[in-house]
Amino acid sequence: MKTNNPVSASVIKRLPRYYRFLGELKNKGTLRISSRELSDMMKLTASQIRQDLNCFGGFGQQGYGYNVAQLHAEIGQILGVDKGFRTIVIGAGNLGRAIATHINFSTRGCELIGIFDRDPAITGEQVGDLNVRHVSELESFCRQKKPVIAVLCIPKAETQEIAERLVTLGLKAFWNYSHYDLSIDYEDIVVENVHLGDSLLTLTYRTKEITG
Amino acid sequence: MKTNNPVSASVIKRLPRYYRFLGELKNKGTLRISSRELSDMMKLTASQIRQDLNCFGGFGQQGYGYNVAQLHAEIGQILGVDKGFRTIVIGAGNLGRAIATHINFSTRGCELIGIFDRDPAITGEQVGDLNVRHVSELESFCRQKKPVIAVLCIPKAETQEIAERLVTLGLKAFWNYSHYDLSIDYEDIVVENVHLGDSLLTLTYRTKEITG
Repeated sequence: MKTNNPVSASVIKRLPRYYRFLGELKNKGTLRISSRELSDMMKLTASQIRQDLNCFGGFGQQGYGYNVAQLHAEIGQILGVDKGFRTIVIGAGNLGRAIATHINFSTRGCELIGIFDRDPAITGEQVGDLNVRHVSELESFCRQKKPVIAVLCIPKAETQEIAERLVTLGLKAFWNYSHYDLSIDYEDIVVENVHLGDSLLTLTYRTKEITG
Repeated sequence: MKTNNPVSASVIKRLPRYYRFLGELKNKGTLRISSRELSDMMKLTASQIRQDLNCFGGFGQQGYGYNVAQLHAEIGQILGVDKGFRTIVIGAGNLGRAIATHINFSTRGCELIGIFDRDPAITGEQVGDLNVRHVSELESFCRQKKPVIAVLCIPKAETQEIAERLVTLGLKAFWNYSHYDLSIDYEDIVVENVHLGDSLLTLTYRTKEITG
């Protein structure tokens, strides 16, 4: 079923989570689910869920619920999980290696095609299916392979410079782990900053609340 | 200045981000900032910021703005940055090592006191200031050191079991990187699940939007 109206930004923000839960249900063999069951799982109100998923047309039917596989596929298409955006990781320290090996890029619309580091001592080391390349190869690699997304796992001080170099090389999007709030003054460049420390602070606050 | 009223959950969610921005301003030597300047930095409306920060009493003054250091300290105290909750990391693979070495626990109310792995081959290896311990030491370690928070960097299949073991040993909070939506059926246990894949999917969607 096609979506006729553009989906609002606030709904978009929740889509990855819907996609994840629906994927788990699908893997368990669940064929359909009511908005009430989904609301119990996801800790959202049933009316919020109905409102969000109404954007995608008539999946929910009274007394039947949502078709899990169909809704999962539709949300996946909206998110772009079939896009296969060519992706490179910059920085092959512990963090870059962890991202390159723990994240399933291919199910999230990305294809990991390279990992780079400035340390010549680790050039050639294997990380997952890839061998670490030296950053001096970036220009020739990007001209040939045309990556679209870069994952930045490098120190804060180097981030702005490498980001600008990558924009010049045609990169369009940054998944930024560098503790540096990247602000690139180019049109049509997207940045997703990951602030793991904010998540830890939230946990600290909640731990303080329960331990008194 | 003391807060008299409890702070709402939606404000609490934004506090780590305020704390981060105010910390950066403080480090740059900024003494005060208007809600308009803060709103430009944080991409929130000035009225949203005024409303949020009003919870903490009279920091904002017409024509003067907020006292950066004072507001930073107050928000830090609410979050519990002085708590020093004893924290252990379970799993010393790339991800566990990256978390243990990249995250500044001490500025976020935590003190990292141990890292554990089930692989005897890496027992004793150094990660930051710590040596990897074997998970069989968990019981004696926890009895002696009484950690409060555990960071879970282990495979999905092992998460529920190790979490239950840790709850029995007195752990109160989990920072969970395991791709497993931890639901612990205990009162007074808090869990912060980190879903890096959701962040990547958001980036994929935004990349799709700009690349057409």
